[in-house]
Amino acid sequence: MSDRPGPEATARLTRWEQRTEVPLFLAGLLFLTGYAVRVLAPHDAQPWHDISLTLVWSTWLLFLVDYVTRLRLSGLGYRFPRVHWLDTVVLLLPLLRPLRMVQVYQAVQRRRDRPRLNLYARVMTYAGMTVGLLGFAAALAVYNLEHRAPDASIRTFGDAVWWACATLTTVGYGDATPVTFWGRVVAAGLMACGLALLGAVTGSFSSWLIQVFAREDEKRSPERS
Amino acid sequence: MSDRPGPEATARLTRWEQRTEVPLFLAGLLFLTGYAVRVLAPHDAQPWHDISLTLVWSTWLLFLVDYVTRLRLSGLGYRFPRVHWLDTVVLLLPLLRPLRMVQVYQAVQRRRDRPRLNLYARVMTYAGMTVGLLGFAAALAVYNLEHRAPDASIRTFGDAVWWACATLTTVGYGDATPVTFWGRVVAAGLMACGLALLGAVTGSFSSWLIQVFAREDEKRSPERS
Amino acid sequence: MSDRPGPEATARLTRWEQRTEVPLFLAGLLFLTGYAVRVLAPHDAQPWHDISLTLVWSTWLLFLVDYVTRLRLSGLGYRFPRVHWLDTVVLLLPLLRPLRMVQVYQAVQRRRDRPRLNLYARVMTYAGMTVGLLGFAAALAVYNLEHRAPDASIRTFGDAVWWACATLTTVGYGDATPVTFWGRVVAAGLMACGLALLGAVTGSFSSWLIQVFAREDEKRSPERS
Amino acid sequence: MSDRPGPEATARLTRWEQRTEVPLFLAGLLFLTGYAVRVLAPHDAQPWHDISLTLVWSTWLLFLVDYVTRLRLSGLGYRFPRVHWLDTVVLLLPLLRPLRMVQVYQAVQRRRDRPRLNLYARVMTYAGMTVGLLGFAAALAVYNLEHRAPDASIRTFGDAVWWACATLTTVGYGDATPVTFWGRVVAAGLMACGLALLGAVTGSFSSWLIQVFAREDEKRSPERS
Repeated sequence: MSDRPGPEATARLTRWEQRTEVPLFLAGLLFLTGYAVRVLAPHDAQPWHDISLTLVWSTWLLFLVDYVTRLRLSGLGYRFPRVHWLDTVVLLLPLLRPLRMVQVYQAVQRRRDRPRLNLYARVMTYAGMTVGLLGFAAALAVYNLEHRAPDASIRTFGDAVWWACATLTTVGYGDATPVTFWGRVVAAGLMACGLALLGAVTGSFSSWLIQVFAREDEKRSPERS
Repeated sequence: MSDRPGPEATARLTRWEQRTEVPLFLAGLLFLTGYAVRVLAPHDAQPWHDISLTLVWSTWLLFLVDYVTRLRLSGLGYRFPRVHWLDTVVLLLPLLRPLRMVQVYQAVQRRRDRPRLNLYARVMTYAGMTVGLLGFAAALAVYNLEHRAPDASIRTFGDAVWWACATLTTVGYGDATPVTFWGRVVAAGLMACGLALLGAVTGSFSSWLIQVFAREDEKRSPERS
Repeated sequence: MSDRPGPEATARLTRWEQRTEVPLFLAGLLFLTGYAVRVLAPHDAQPWHDISLTLVWSTWLLFLVDYVTRLRLSGLGYRFPRVHWLDTVVLLLPLLRPLRMVQVYQAVQRRRDRPRLNLYARVMTYAGMTVGLLGFAAALAVYNLEHRAPDASIRTFGDAVWWACATLTTVGYGDATPVTFWGRVVAAGLMACGLALLGAVTGSFSSWLIQVFAREDEKRSPERS
Repeated sequence: MSDRPGPEATARLTRWEQRTEVPLFLAGLLFLTGYAVRVLAPHDAQPWHDISLTLVWSTWLLFLVDYVTRLRLSGLGYRFPRVHWLDTVVLLLPLLRPLRMVQVYQAVQRRRDRPRLNLYARVMTYAGMTVGLLGFAAALAVYNLEHRAPDASIRTFGDAVWWACATLTTVGYGDATPVTFWGRVVAAGLMACGLALLGAVTGSFSSWLIQVFAREDEKRSPERS
């Protein structure tokens, strides 16, 4: 109970989060773009290098400002990093930012009373978008870590994207695999995402089927009795 | 609300779709046959080459006529491609036509009041047929794109079918994998189908189990009370 | 409706099936043993060769006698192979016999009123046994088809069992894979079994969780209201 | 019915199990640490070798004392190994000890009336911890069995952990696979755990979705009627 702030602090925090949601999402896309430019541009291409550095650091500064503001608004003090541990992880590893999408989704869900998409379509859409962005971020990180390693099988960015697809769907051909320590750490994280994606797809489909069946049963039972 | 046409337009469209369903399904099979002949026949075999070209283009013309007729009947005008986006994709990439099977299935379901197969068997049958046809189309496309690439591991059509099986079931041995850009794009699409197939199989089984259990509970509860 | 025989024919058939269940299951195990001896014994080992031939053919004769008796008892005539298609397939490919276990399971379920295992445990047990026996049969068949092929990666029976494990769990390392046509056909069948196994495991677990949760909800709701 | 002891024996056994739960869990961690030191320390490092031997044998002695005490308290006599078969397996193969976590979890669940985590989060947490510890134990065992084999692809402990990740998530790249008999036996066990993990993740997600949907339905139905 001591982890929960008062109702005014919660209201202020919620207002702040609702206002910063869309700008932060755009900043996240900019950060990913900056990181992509930094990784993919040739290293002697001076203008691109400067642009990417500016993008990455200025968006990260935005994330930091948001984090500190939320920490002060929440009235939690030093307990904030523990209570909002996902935000803390995402601040330190901004490539994991797509994981916050689940929170954005919940906020959107709360605001609208009548969603246009039904529940299963929404789960699929959000799972798909989160996984797509995480897969792209992982492909960038793995390409950056691997492409100059001796004996690397991931040599181009295309290889990295191909590897990310095969990993996320748990197919795992093994024709392109990370060989460095940090590349394998990133890969292990992506495998866990693949498992969760499978769970989301399977679970949505299963729930949808059960609902369809329940409706058919309802439709028929009046005729029988 | 503005995307929905009036009830007469919907009725006319439904009538057209019901009448063209079976001919279009057969035309889809002919298209696949024509594409298979074009890919698998040796290139100096003149008669086969002409037959396949005729089949592919004439069936595609049929698809185009159907699409334009539906566009006019619907009364949606330029919004038709966005509302019926799956039909638009399937017109441009006719190899994805098996995906329309889900719609055919829904139409069939609506017409018959007492289906002979129960729900789970139907889901399995349709998922199986869709996936089988898509896998065959993907094997043809990948064989076409890969078999002349240097360093290709998919050299015969048998290899391509074997690769499609291992991909759709997410086994992914990796002894035969696409190496060209477009081959890998097709493969990524097939992996997504494999995930969906897993979801369909798992979801059907899970729903079936829950239903069986619910019936056992019902059967026993009178004895207990 | 014309596929269904009269009630007396059904009763006679059921009585026959109940009586022959256990003997046929044991005959199936003997057939598998005979096939295993034939595949694994060295070819110049005359006594083993004769024993295995006798086992395989005599058990198959038993299967044939059972099939013909059921055909006559059923009163279906030439429609029997179509109605009981699984029995027909299993007669022609006796290595698929473990698939009949599902029917044995249903018969057992009908007879006992209070099963000792609950539903999920039974599903897991039957899925596990069916898949184990099918995997063993597939390993034997693939070893037989592959071990003398040039460029084979499955050279010992241990390799074949290892390959069957990796395939059934959809892991698919790819260090041992079939390279011949018929070996790959068997493998494709085993992959489908792996998908079904995943579905059974996932589905059982999911159903069990839903039931546990429903009970917790029931337990708490009286306290709330 | 004859397998069940009287109510006093059950009460004594439960009291013993509740008291020894935490010490045994810590002893299990010490055993794993000891085994890790034995496997990973260089063989001429005398002090480490002695420490690990002491740890492994003393913790195993603790497990044996616990097993014998439970056997005597239960009043089951020679039927104890069969009734508590999981405990017997875990005594003989202490690396499988994480599997007992499920029992610890059930005991914890019984004691607390209001759990802080909800059901799905708990299932995910326990599945994750069990699988993580089993994966670590399997990586140690496989490294121990494989790293001196000729033609081994698992040569460092890092390779073994990477292999365990790829196996548990059923990705299965195949760039590092066991080649010895006992290594493959351990691997087959780990694959089965991977299947169960998939089942747990998918099942939890599916159940959670069904519950969310049921609540949305409840929330809306008053508005409709």
